[in-house]
Amino acid sequence: MKTVRLDQIEKSLVTIDGASKAWRQLALGRADGAPTVSFRVFTLEPGGHTPYHTHAAEHMNYIIEGAGCLVDEKGTEHPVQAGDFAFVAPNEKHQYRNKGPALFKMICAVPKEYE
Amino acid sequence: MKTVRLDQIEKSLVTIDGASKAWRQLALGRADGAPTVSFRVFTLEPGGHTPYHTHAAEHMNYIIEGAGCLVDEKGTEHPVQAGDFAFVAPNEKHQYRNKGPALFKMICAVPKEYE
Repeated sequence: MKTVRLDQIEKSLVTIDGASKAWRQLALGRADGAPTVSFRVFTLEPGGHTPYHTHAAEHMNYIIEGAGCLVDEKGTEHPVQAGDFAFVAPNEKHQYRNKGPALFKMICAVPKEYE
Repeated sequence: MKTVRLDQIEKSLVTIDGASKAWRQLALGRADGAPTVSFRVFTLEPGGHTPYHTHAAEHMNYIIEGAGCLVDEKGTEHPVQAGDFAFVAPNEKHQYRNKGPALFKMICAVPKEYE
């Protein structure tokens, strides 16, 4: 059993290609003994975004704060805001964009092998 | 890809033994094609709690709102509040209790077989 406050978790800038003004925190994962998935949190500054990309792992998301969009394979923006859940299937092209004036913060669960 | 607002998801009373004033929503799961885990949301009314029990599945939790506690195997209450994450290992006895005057709401991710 473990409990942890989000603001106590180390934050690192996402440096992979296509990401901008995006920060990553590992809230719960393999080091905690998580057997199935890991919970990461991504924070996008105003104007920030994750890469527009695909990968073999799915995303299970919950928007903690802010307003933004989830871009689909056709480039269509689906608005999301605090209180929304989102599912991105394996190999589905996607991107999160912060569309608001404040921070956009979301949980992104992935199979632990991809944490 | 799917997006859904929490307040649009059907809510049902948890009727299993040991639960009190607890409501369940299935935010994302097998019906959405989730390959690994399902995201449920539990809402505890003031004084409400989940069962004090064990099971083979782990819990990956995020507290959306309110203040409560996570009870461990020894009966010790670990305070949790909005913005906290918690991990309950497989077969670890546990219970969530709402300790505040308002609703206590949390995400509870489990392997999809246990949704």
